[in-house]
Formats: sequence, structure tokens, C-alpha cells
Amino acid sequence: MLALRKTAPAPGLELLNTSQPDKLAENEVMIAVAAAGVCGSDLHVDDWSAGYEFMVPLLPVTLGHEFSGRVVAVGSAVRSVSVGQRVTAWPSAPCGVCRACKTGRPQNCSDKRTVGLYRDGAFATHTVARESGVFPLPESVDFELAALVEPLCVGARAVNVGEIRQGQKVVVLGPGTIGQAIALFARLSGAISVAVAGFDDGSRLSVLNKLGFEDTFDLAEAGSADELFQRFGNADAVFEATGHASSIADGLRLLRNEGTLVLTGIHAEPTTINLLEIVRRKLQIRGSHGSRREDWARVIDTLEHRGEEFRGMITHRLPLSRALEGFALARERSASKVLILPDEREAQS
Amino acid sequence: MLALRKTAPAPGLELLNTSQPDKLAENEVMIAVAAAGVCGSDLHVDDWSAGYEFMVPLLPVTLGHEFSGRVVAVGSAVRSVSVGQRVTAWPSAPCGVCRACKTGRPQNCSDKRTVGLYRDGAFATHTVARESGVFPLPESVDFELAALVEPLCVGARAVNVGEIRQGQKVVVLGPGTIGQAIALFARLSGAISVAVAGFDDGSRLSVLNKLGFEDTFDLAEAGSADELFQRFGNADAVFEATGHASSIADGLRLLRNEGTLVLTGIHAEPTTINLLEIVRRKLQIRGSHGSRREDWARVIDTLEHRGEEFRGMITHRLPLSRALEGFALARERSASKVLILPDEREAQS
Amino acid sequence: MLALRKTAPAPGLELLNTSQPDKLAENEVMIAVAAAGVCGSDLHVDDWSAGYEFMVPLLPVTLGHEFSGRVVAVGSAVRSVSVGQRVTAWPSAPCGVCRACKTGRPQNCSDKRTVGLYRDGAFATHTVARESGVFPLPESVDFELAALVEPLCVGARAVNVGEIRQGQKVVVLGPGTIGQAIALFARLSGAISVAVAGFDDGSRLSVLNKLGFEDTFDLAEAGSADELFQRFGNADAVFEATGHASSIADGLRLLRNEGTLVLTGIHAEPTTINLLEIVRRKLQIRGSHGSRREDWARVIDTLEHRGEEFRGMITHRLPLSRALEGFALARERSASKVLILPDEREAQS
Amino acid sequence: MLALRKTAPAPGLELLNTSQPDKLAENEVMIAVAAAGVCGSDLHVDDWSAGYEFMVPLLPVTLGHEFSGRVVAVGSAVRSVSVGQRVTAWPSAPCGVCRACKTGRPQNCSDKRTVGLYRDGAFATHTVARESGVFPLPESVDFELAALVEPLCVGARAVNVGEIRQGQKVVVLGPGTIGQAIALFARLSGAISVAVAGFDDGSRLSVLNKLGFEDTFDLAEAGSADELFQRFGNADAVFEATGHASSIADGLRLLRNEGTLVLTGIHAEPTTINLLEIVRRKLQIRGSHGSRREDWARVIDTLEHRGEEFRGMITHRLPLSRALEGFALARERSASKVLILPDEREAQS
Ligand SMILES: NC(=O)c1ccc[n+]([C@@H]2O[C@H](COP(=O)([O-])OP(=O)(O)OC[C@H]3O[C@@H](n4cnc5c(N)ncnc54)[C@H](OP(=O)(O)O)[C@@H]3O)[C@@H](O)[C@H]2O)c1
Ligand SMILES: NC(=O)c1ccc[n+]([C@@H]2O[C@H](COP(=O)([O-])OP(=O)(O)OC[C@H]3O[C@@H](n4cnc5c(N)ncnc54)[C@H](OP(=O)(O)O)[C@@H]3O)[C@@H](O)[C@H]2O)c1
Ligand SMILES: NC(=O)c1ccc[n+]([C@@H]2O[C@H](COP(=O)([O-])OP(=O)(O)OC[C@H]3O[C@@H](n4cnc5c(N)ncnc54)[C@H](OP(=O)(O)O)[C@@H]3O)[C@@H](O)[C@H]2O)c1
Ligand SMILES: NC(=O)c1ccc[n+]([C@@H]2O[C@H](COP(=O)([O-])OP(=O)(O)OC[C@H]3O[C@@H](n4cnc5c(N)ncnc54)[C@H](OP(=O)(O)O)[C@@H]3O)[C@@H](O)[C@H]2O)c1
Ligand SMILES: [Zn+2]
Ligand SMILES: [Zn+2]
Ligand SMILES: [Zn+2]
Ligand SMILES: [Zn+2]
Repeated sequence: MLALRKTAPAPGLELLNTSQPDKLAENEVMIAVAAAGVCGSDLHVDDWSAGYEFMVPLLPVTLGHEFSGRVVAVGSAVRSVSVGQRVTAWPSAPCGVCRACKTGRPQNCSDKRTVGLYRDGAFATHTVARESGVFPLPESVDFELAALVEPLCVGARAVNVGEIRQGQKVVVLGPGTIGQAIALFARLSGAISVAVAGFDDGSRLSVLNKLGFEDTFDLAEAGSADELFQRFGNADAVFEATGHASSIADGLRLLRNEGTLVLTGIHAEPTTINLLEIVRRKLQIRGSHGSRREDWARVIDTLEHRGEEFRGMITHRLPLSRALEGFALARERSASKVLILPDEREAQS
Repeated sequence: MLALRKTAPAPGLELLNTSQPDKLAENEVMIAVAAAGVCGSDLHVDDWSAGYEFMVPLLPVTLGHEFSGRVVAVGSAVRSVSVGQRVTAWPSAPCGVCRACKTGRPQNCSDKRTVGLYRDGAFATHTVARESGVFPLPESVDFELAALVEPLCVGARAVNVGEIRQGQKVVVLGPGTIGQAIALFARLSGAISVAVAGFDDGSRLSVLNKLGFEDTFDLAEAGSADELFQRFGNADAVFEATGHASSIADGLRLLRNEGTLVLTGIHAEPTTINLLEIVRRKLQIRGSHGSRREDWARVIDTLEHRGEEFRGMITHRLPLSRALEGFALARERSASKVLILPDEREAQS
Repeated sequence: MLALRKTAPAPGLELLNTSQPDKLAENEVMIAVAAAGVCGSDLHVDDWSAGYEFMVPLLPVTLGHEFSGRVVAVGSAVRSVSVGQRVTAWPSAPCGVCRACKTGRPQNCSDKRTVGLYRDGAFATHTVARESGVFPLPESVDFELAALVEPLCVGARAVNVGEIRQGQKVVVLGPGTIGQAIALFARLSGAISVAVAGFDDGSRLSVLNKLGFEDTFDLAEAGSADELFQRFGNADAVFEATGHASSIADGLRLLRNEGTLVLTGIHAEPTTINLLEIVRRKLQIRGSHGSRREDWARVIDTLEHRGEEFRGMITHRLPLSRALEGFALARERSASKVLILPDEREAQS
Repeated sequence: MLALRKTAPAPGLELLNTSQPDKLAENEVMIAVAAAGVCGSDLHVDDWSAGYEFMVPLLPVTLGHEFSGRVVAVGSAVRSVSVGQRVTAWPSAPCGVCRACKTGRPQNCSDKRTVGLYRDGAFATHTVARESGVFPLPESVDFELAALVEPLCVGARAVNVGEIRQGQKVVVLGPGTIGQAIALFARLSGAISVAVAGFDDGSRLSVLNKLGFEDTFDLAEAGSADELFQRFGNADAVFEATGHASSIADGLRLLRNEGTLVLTGIHAEPTTINLLEIVRRKLQIRGSHGSRREDWARVIDTLEHRGEEFRGMITHRLPLSRALEGFALARERSASKVLILPDEREAQS
């Protein structure tokens, strides 16, 4: 089958033919991929940025961890999923028996083997996932919405970490997929006003406008930062989804006393923080990473009822044979979520 | 001034002339009333139902605890409110120094002296409130929306007691003002589906339809209860806002394991509950009554941003001279919230 | 091997020879039992009380769900446990893939197959448990303390359901094993005063005194109830661990406004509650049943550090051959926890 | 009366005669001081460190914000306190009507006028406090324990900010009064193991040993840090109470995934943090400052039941005339809490 793979510990990816997975452990499920999203992490792996050294002993690895598809085979002990079902899958489904799992924190599982990073993923025609992470799709959730579940869960989790409540004022720094997911779930969780800021990010901010967010700010424009601080200072929560360290100081300054700054960006550089302000103003900084099992059920339920509110996040759809073109688009400011469609049925640029 | 008063410990109210309040304690504020809502409790006091004996030594008392208006005078120590401001007021603003207040539970204040029940209220041209309970109105919140703040806070509080989170399935039993307020705040707080049930309550359920709730059930109609249980069984939370004991068994049966039933109705009769079901299914029953200070700021903020979503709750507006007519309407199933407008400016039946 | 079994749907148990379990599913662990506690549910199954009809199609079943022992064999896929380890096990370890498990509520698993109720348990020389429920023991936790883990988890969970915080005043109704576990964990969780009440329960209350609880009340004694209400009225939380419906009214009356009554008793009869009091005083009634995975790790950690504070709960130890004698003791007011020791090593009456 | 005052915006304090306060606002209470603790902030004001510029327009100001005493006069509107009562007082009792107060966050009051910093304090024979902050003392809490309430509330609040639960592993960096208060309340809140670290801090660590903390570490000793990391790595929560920026990196490194670092130190310098670690390990940094109203009631209740467990925090008692000597002791590593006793009755060095 065709697959987009990291083959060597150096920049670049290869689109090549490889054999289809053929044996399943007793608790595994084989899925014919229908759609797979390109994530910022995939770009980092392509670029071979720092932070992905764990992949070296595992190479070659097929990328793709945000996906949906149809079950084509199940392991001998699988009981909750059956051949033919339409599904999506939590790529980091926990092992169930390591110390973190046994003590009730499966989200910290030490043996996750994330699909698309630790084992072959979904930029291919077929992939394999742990039964405990495979979620059947409601009828009203089509494959392309289902491919959004993974990044939506990242956003939904960050919003939970920020404990957003009805009536709050929220600022999201970063208008990419993660920032969009955060803004959407902050609004769904009761935030009464949500601002989103980007930097020289017109096309992504216009995706946000289409998603119904009127208060967007392009900080590259003169006066925009001032307006953000004036109208959204005293925020209950700020979410950083830029990966840029400079967002930290901005975020803290936007908060009301006792407010919370949630970090989701993968940062290459440390930053300096003013501890006196943290203490005297009783601020909080909270890291959020990945999602939890309960987020998956909740996000799928939400898509079942209100899926169309999310479709605007997808700006491009490409066949697997043109996957690298999709990566290029994702790297540009023009694209938001790019989907790779292995079977080429629904592909369009 | 004209005032609608309880004058004797027996059924009935009197609309009569009384002197305008003329002296203020140092922390009090005098308000020229602009609008005041008729509440279920007002009907109970009119009927002289059990539960209001505390009023006997205080009679006569002018009713009206859901109101808005303009500040016309302030006590010598008042600093946060000034003459001319448009305001609403928490009628049960706490004293600040009783044991409950000193230990951080002002909502349980033992010296609340609720305006409109313990002291003269707002079915009059003027009323007096404690400074700490007076909230200035944002420009976009007009007087009639502001008169909804008190019952909206009751609903918002109940939703907090039920800990409604993004993605939940909620059932509200009772389509009156309190049920409407609960449904609105459950939706604002992230409930992904909200059912509301009434009993022979066509006109109130159609108010809910206008407020955007499609899943309404009139339990007096054949098959309606079955449909409710089929579609909304396994609910995360159920809210009882009927005052009828029979709702308790229904509510518990609708819940998923570990679900919560929130009670807000004022019940004349006790009921029988199945303890084994409570324990084995880990259910919770939580009482909610009144509101908290933080609910007031939050509800006013919400009205500032989304006030028009609430206006449909008001079905009738009447001048003070026709207040008793307003009570009759409120007692009928046809009316939802009835507002009394003392200055007769905006009155219409 | 010798085993104490329910063989027919009628009162009574049989101590008989049966074959040792010999085959293990790939995720199962075989344990040579070292100690097993007699629980109130075991007595109910012996008596054949209502509520255990689910056992009929499963009979015969060996009882015993509170146990510790040594691993003697593991299934082919087991990775986290090894032969020779000293362990205890959560008898209701979840399946991991049912809808409740997949949505992050494994405590509500629909396929628990509780050891000692749904499948053969620990009143035998050997028993079998799911890997995901097997917890290795720290060196300082001996087998008999380890046999307390299951009921301690029930108490620890109830205390969490009651959200006990530093500084609170707590009342526990019922001085049996569950009441003792609740009192111990309420104290460990910061309750500053803990009262425990029994009824004609001198010997169990004296166990509580030995565990360091000075404020014990025997409600069968004249004046005792009055003293309880006088000194512990206005409680933050009350725990019912009696199984008697009459405790509900007492519990609600003891609570302060906004207080919580946690129910753990298995109640044969429904009860009548005063809804008006629940609403106006904003009380809560919360059911607690069983435990959660995270409780197991926490309770074992606690025993590791402070095990000796718990040993007093065990009042009798008997060899498996005299198990029925143990049941008789457990039924009497004189015994608290009775342990059955299959290998007769440490047995003493 | 004799009073220890800051008279000019420069290093130093003056012990001089000044007139006793003689007029009270209607909601104020005059207290004859019985004991007043020397706090780290008092030393900063003495030194005239950065961060206290707000005092300039208010000078001269008598210091002393941790105190107890007897009520000698009350304002005209005071109802909850009476002459002769033994009391302590929250020096930053909120105004009740500013925006923060009206929205249910009185701890963020913008008009606190903290006694001993913004207005004359308790290193004098008499001081004045707001009624809403004055708490009567239970009989069993003597004046010197009552003078500990303020710093104990700072510790109790930090422990709440850290959400310490039964069974957790906690590290406290800094063995001063605040670190001691945190350690005591972490233990009372259920922490199963509590380590405390100091730096060249033998005498304060031995105070902690006397308070029952066995796991103390003097990081100035070779090998001590290694032992701390080995035995207390993987901590659920770390509390920084040193005021030294270097504690931040240590604290983060000690935490388990999803753990929380609570900051209480007043830091003169910013620090650099590794954002990638915060995000990937889902760590949290939370500032804590001052206390809340509910902490006061809780800490006083706790002292009523277990006061003797706290007395060891007090290492020195001195008459007001020797207050400056007390400051010198507080500055040295040998003293823990130093109390100033204005009436010289109980004074001893
Ligand atoms: N925590 C997790 O579980 C998780 C999961 C997935 C991804 N991530 C991380 O989360 C971050 C966001 O992910 P993504 O996929 O949404 O990334 P993305 O597509 O790179 O989006 C980030 C956006 O932030 C903008 N930006 C840069 N500096 C900014 C500033 N100072 N103010 C406002 N906006 C600014 C970027 O604009 P330019 O294009 O102009 O730079 C870009 O549009 C990345 O660091 C990613 O690695 C975290
Ligand atoms: N907790 C608080 O703080 C608070 C504050 C205010 C009011 N309340 C109480 O909350 C309750 C609701 O207040 P409200 O002003 O909304 O009252 P309401 O106007 O009387 O509304 C209650 C509604 O419930 C309907 N109903 C009766 N039985 C029902 C059943 N079995 N299933 C579904 N609906 C049923 C009633 O219909 P019919 O007209 O056909 O009977 C009525 O439309 C009252 O008991 C009130 O006293 C509580
Ligand atoms: N929720 C769960 O997960 C769970 C788990 C295990 C057990 N349980 C249930 O929890 C309850 C307690 O269990 P256990 O093993 O501790 O039971 P237990 O040994 O029967 O203890 C209950 C104690 O309560 C006493 N009592 C009876 N009426 C009382 C009253 N009015 N006031 C105070 N004390 C009274 C009983 O005394 P007498 O002996 O004089 O009656 C007995 O000593 C039982 O109903 C049991 O079935 C629940
Ligand atoms: N958040 C609030 O509401 C609040 C309230 C009061 C005080 N504070 C602040 O909280 C901090 C602690 O107050 P305190 O009164 O307890 O202060 P303190 O008496 O100065 O105690 C701090 C202790 O930490 C020790 N220390 C210094 N560096 C250390 C390190 N690297 N590791 C471990 N210990 C170290 C100090 O030792 P040396 O003496 O050797 O330096 C000293 O014994 C201060 O910064 C104070 O200003 C905050
Ligand atoms: Zn990703
Ligand atoms: Zn009302
Ligand atoms: Zn049991
Ligand atoms: Zn201080």
C-alpha cells in the first residue's frame, strides 16, 4: 500500500509502497483509512525539529494520527468493535496495566505507543489501533468530521484544564487548528466572549470569523494589540496555542487576578516569568497536552449534534498521492486543517 | 405612593396608598421602581399557603422582589452607587457580619431581610435595598430584562449546583419561569441537549420553543412520557422545577448512573424515595434555593451580551394599578413572566 | 481445594471440596489466597436476602471478595504482575471496553464480573482475578492488612463522594466495618471532629475508641441521641452506614445548611423525605457504592505509611475450615472484621 | 501609647510614643493588643525593600498585622462583636462593595486598607479593625496561638490552592513560618508524606522536627538534595516558600506528571522556566497570596481542637519595648516566629 513515512533521522518524508499490516494482536483493530489530518507535529517530524528523538529506534514509521475509517479486521479478543463499523481512534489509547493506568491516570500511560508516531499511522490505506481507543461513529458524523476528533479533543481538554465556566471572558493566542478547537470549545463551555489573536494570519483569522468568532485580532497590524488589551484585559482565562514564548508575558498581562493561563504550544525555547506578579495576583499557569478518554466520547457526542459548526476548520482535502503537497499547504499561512484522503474518492485541492 | 401589600395573615392582597420610604440607613439605597416581576412565591403569599408564617409579625409588607429601577437617594456611607444610576438588586443581600457571612457563606446569611418578603418590596413606586446588593446595569440591559435577573439567578444557581458541563444531556421538569431559566443556563453552560417537560402546559412550552428548545414534552399527552424516557433516559442531570413530589421518582428514573437530580420546587408534601437505587446507582439529590452573589454579576454580564435570547420569557406587562390582574394571569397557564410597571409608561396587557 | 460456596438459590452456604481453577484467560492472574474478609454482603448472600437474584444463573459460586495472597500463575498477555508477588485485587476491575469504560467511567463498567459474587472468590485456597485489578503490595503491608483494602476503599470512596475537607465536622451513622473505614478516612482527609453512632453496639464502638475516636454514641442508651444532636448538629457531612432507613431523617437533621448526607447502606426499604427541607436548606443526598481504581492505589499507599492505625479493625481470624463460625461471629455484634485464613498458618479464634 | 512605626521612606523603624486611636467609623472595632507576630513583610518594610512604595503617601504607619487582643470599643453600627471579647482579626478584611467584593471575590477587594501596612497596626497597645474581619476566639485558643492565625491562614490557603488530598506526597521548600504553616496544613489535609527543605537552616528544621516532621532536608549539606530528589521525586505537589527564584526549577523537577507547584514567596527576581516541560508533563504553577474569609473560620476551629500542635512555631516572646530586638531575632536563622507582647505581662526573651 502507499504510505507517507519517516524513514531516516533527518529532515524529509517519503511517500512509498509498503506492505499492508497483516497480523493483529488479540486486542487490536485494523482500519481502512478514510481521512487523516495533517498536524503541526507531523510538520515538526518532517522538519526533524528537536523533541522527536524518541522515534529514531522505531524508524521507519508511517505518520498520521488524526484519522477515521472503516474496521476491516479485529483481533481474537476484541468484543466492542466489529468489522464494517465506521470509527475514529484515540492514537494514544493507554495500555491499561502500567503504574499510571493502574492508579487511575491512564492519560499518563507509560506505554501508549501512539499511532502515527510510535507505530505506523494513517497516511496510508490501512492502520492498526488498540481496541480500547476505537470509537464507533454516530451516523451523522461523516469521515472528514471524524478526522477532526483528535485535534478537537486537544482543544476540549485544554478548555477543561482552564476550567472555563458560563459567563467567562476568554482570549486565545494562536489561530491554528489547536487555537480554533480551543475557541470552539470555550464557547461551547459557556464563555460569553472569546477573542482570538494571530500574527500576520489573515486567512486563519477569516476561518475563525466564518466559525462565528467576531473578535479576531491580527497582532501584526498596528494598534491591534492595544485594542486586544483594552477590550479583553481582565480575562478569566488565556490560552496559548502559538508555540512562541513571547505569548507567555502577553497572556499573563491579559489575565484578571486569580486568572489562568493554559499552555498548549510545543515550545523550543524557555522563557522568563515575573514571579512576583504570579504570587501577588494569584495567577496560574497550567500545561495541557493531549486528551483524556472522556474527551473522546464527549467530542463525538458534540459532533453528532452540532457537527456543521466545525466543518469550516477543514480548508483543504487531497489524495494520499499528493500528501506532500498537503504538508506544504499546512506549512503556509493560507491553510487551516488539511485532510489526506487515501482512497482518492473525495479528493479536491 | 401606590403599593400592593400583604396586610393581614389571610388570603388576599391590597392595592393601596402608603407613604413613600423617607429615611435610609447609612448603607441603604432608595430606588424608583421601573419594572417588577410576579413570582410564584408572590402567588403563594397572596394565597396564604403554608410556609410564609414568618411574615406575620412583619405585616403589612409590600410584595415584589424581582425588580429594576433608578437610584433616587443613597445613605450616608454608600460609596459604590450613585443617584441616577440604573440598577437591579439582590433582594436577599447578606448582612456581612453574622456567623454565616463571617465564615464565607453569605448565601446562608441569617439576617437577609429579603426585600419584598421581610421588608417592603417593589410593587410600588419606590423601594429600598442594601448597597451591597445593588448592581448597576450595563447600557444594553433595559429595565424589563433587568427585572428578570432575580429568577435568572435562581436558574443559573441551580445549573451550577447540578455542575452542568459541556456535552451533557439535561432534562428540566417544569416549564415555568424557573424551569425556563434553568433550561437557558443549562444550554449556555454547555448542555448539548436539553429537554423540558410540562403538564397540560401548551402555552409555556411554546414559550420554550420560541426560546429555541425543540425538545419539549407535555406529559398530559398520551405517549409523551414514554418518548421522554426513550430519548432522554440516561440523562446526566435532571432539574425539578414543578413543586410536585411526583417529579422526584421520574427524575431519578431518567438519570444515568452517577447522575444528579437538582430540586428547586417548593414542595408542600414529602415523598418516598428508593434508597437502594440511590446507593447502587450512585445517584445524587441536591437542593438549590436562591442564588449567590457571584451569580448576579454573571447573569448581568450574560444579559449584556445576549439579552435578546431572554426577552421571550416575558409574556405580559401591566401597570401597577392593574397588578392584581397580573397576578391572575400569572396563576393561569397562559402567562409566563408577568411584569408590573409602576410608572405606567410602557404598560400594555 | 476447600471452598465456601453458594450452591443453590436458598439460604445457606456449603463448605466443600472443589477443583482448583486451572485455566487462565490471557489477562488473568491466579492467586493463592492468604486472607479473606467476611463482608456484610456475604452475610446477605448466605441469608439469601432480596437483591442477589443476579447470582441464580451463575451458581455455584465461591464467595469472598476482600482478599490478599500470592500470585501463582499468570495468563499469556499479563505484563504487570509476576509469579511470586504478594498482591491484593479489586474484585470489580472493569472490562476496559464497554461503553462506560470507553467513556471514562470504568467504575460503572457493565461487565465487571465481580470476584466472589459473579465468579468464584477467595474463601478458597486459590482464586482468579483480572490483571488490571491486581495490585502488588508494599513490603510493610502484610496479608491481613491487605485483606482490608477492599472495604477501606469503600470507605475512602464514600469520603470522597462527601468531599470532606480540612476542618470539617463529620458524623458517621453505623459502627461496622464500612462506618469504621469512613471514620478513618474522614479523619485522614482532614475532618477536625468525627462522631460515630451505633445502636446497641458496645463492642464495635469500643473498636472505634481503640482506633482513636473518642466521640462515640450508642443511640440505644437514653440521652445519647440528644447529646449527639447537641454536640454534632450543624455537621458538614453525615455518612449513613447502617442500612436502616431511619438513619436518613437523623442524618438530614444533623446537617448544617448546604451539608451533605452520603448513603452507603444497602437498604431493603424506601423512606420518606421532606423535600421542602432539602430545597430551602440546600441539602444534598449522595449515594456511594464500591470504589474507583484511584482509591486502590491511594489506600495501599496509606497502609504502607500508616498501616498500624487500621489493624484494630480486625477482631477475629479463623481457618477456612471454620469459615461458617466466622460468619456467625460477623453476624453478632461482638465481631468487627473477621478474616478467613485459608492456609491455617496464622489462624486463631 | 508606644508604637513601632515606619516614619520615612528609607530603611529603619522607630519605636515612639503616639496618641491612641480615639475615633471609630461606624463599622470599626478598637482592640487592646495582646500579642503580635513579626512577619517577613515587616522585615522587608524595615529594610525598605522594593515592593512597598505604596506606603509612601500613608506614612507614618504603625506595623503589625498578625495579632490578637481584647475589644475595648465598637463603632455605632457594629452588631457582631462586643466590648470585652477576645478576638483576632483579618487585617485585609474586604470593603464589601467594590467590584471585586460585589462579584463574589472579596479576596481581591480593591479597598482592603490592610491593618499594619495601609493603616496603623498592632505593634502598639491599641489598634483598629473592620468589624467584618474581627473573629471572636474560642476559650481554648489563647492570645499567643491567636496571633498565629494570620500566617496559618496564609499556609492553609496555599494548601487549598494546591488542592492537597488524602494520600498525597508533598514537598515544602522553605522552613520559615509560611513553610511551617504549609507543612502543618498539608498534613492536616491528608498528605501522607511531607518533606520540608531549608538552606543552612538547622534551627528552623529542628522546629519542624518538633512539630512532627521527620523528613527534613538541609540543602546546604552535601548529598541532601540528592536524597530529597530520590525519596520525594514524583511529588503530587511542591510548595515554594523561600522567596528564592532557584526554588522554581527544583520544584518543577520534583513533581510527577500533572503535579502542581504553588508559589508563595515574595520574589525580587524573575526566573526562567522550561515551557516544554510544563506542557508535555502537564504541570501547573499556581500563585497563592494572603487568605480568604473562609480560611479564618477554619483555622480558628482547627486551633480550638488541636492548638497545641502549633505552639512550637513560636520560639521567642518579647515586650513591645524590645520590639527591635525581636526584629533582629526574626532576621536571624535561629528564630522562627517572634511574638511582641505589648502589655509586657508574659514577656520573656
Ligand atoms: N498540547 C498539545 O497536546 C498539542 C497538540 C497539538 C499541537 N500542539 C502545539 O500547539 C501549538 C499550536 O498548534 P497548531 O497546530 O494550531 O499550530 P499552528 O498551525 O502552527 O498555529 C499556531 C498559530 O499561531 C500563530 N502565532 C505565532 N505567533 C503568534 C503570536 N505571538 N500571537 C498570536 N499568534 C501567533 C501562528 O502564526 P504564524 O503562522 O504566522 O507563525 C500560527 O497561525 C503548536 O506549538 C503545536 O505544536 C500541542
Ligand atoms: N429554589 C428556589 O430558589 C425557587 C425560587 C423561585 C421559585 N421556586 C419554586 O420553583 C418551582 C417552579 O417555579 P415557577 O415560578 O417556575 O413555577 P410555576 O410557574 O408554577 O411553574 C411550574 C410548572 O411546572 C408544571 N408542572 C406541574 N406538574 C408537573 C409535572 N409533573 N411535570 C412537569 N411539569 C409539571 C406546572 O404546570 P401546571 O401549571 O399545569 O401545574 C407549571 O407550569 C415552584 O415550586 C416555586 O415555588 C423555587
Ligand atoms: N456502598 C457500598 O459499596 C457498600 C459496601 C459494603 C457494604 N455496604 C453496606 O453498608 C452498610 C454497612 O456495612 P457494614 O459491613 O459496616 O455493616 P454492619 O456490620 O451491619 O454495620 C452496620 C452497623 O450499624 C448499626 N446500626 C443499625 N441501626 C443503626 C442506627 N439507627 N444508628 C446507628 N447505627 C445503627 C448496626 O448495629 P446492629 O448490629 O445493632 O444492627 C451495625 O453495627 C450495610 O448496609 C452494607 O450492606 C455498602
Ligand atoms: N504569599 C503570601 O501571602 C505570603 C505571606 C507572607 C510571607 N510571604 C513570603 O513567603 C516567603 C516565606 O515567608 P517566611 O515568613 O516563611 O520567610 P522566611 O522566614 O524568610 O523563610 C524562608 C526560608 O527559606 C529558606 N531558604 C532560602 N533559600 C532556600 C532554598 N533554596 N531551599 C530551601 N529553603 C531556602 C530561608 O533560609 P535562609 O534564612 O538561609 O535564607 C528561610 O529559612 C517569603 O518570601 C515571604 O515574603 C508570602
Ligand atoms: Zn497531533
Ligand atoms: Zn422569587
Ligand atoms: Zn464487600
Ligand atoms: Zn504577613
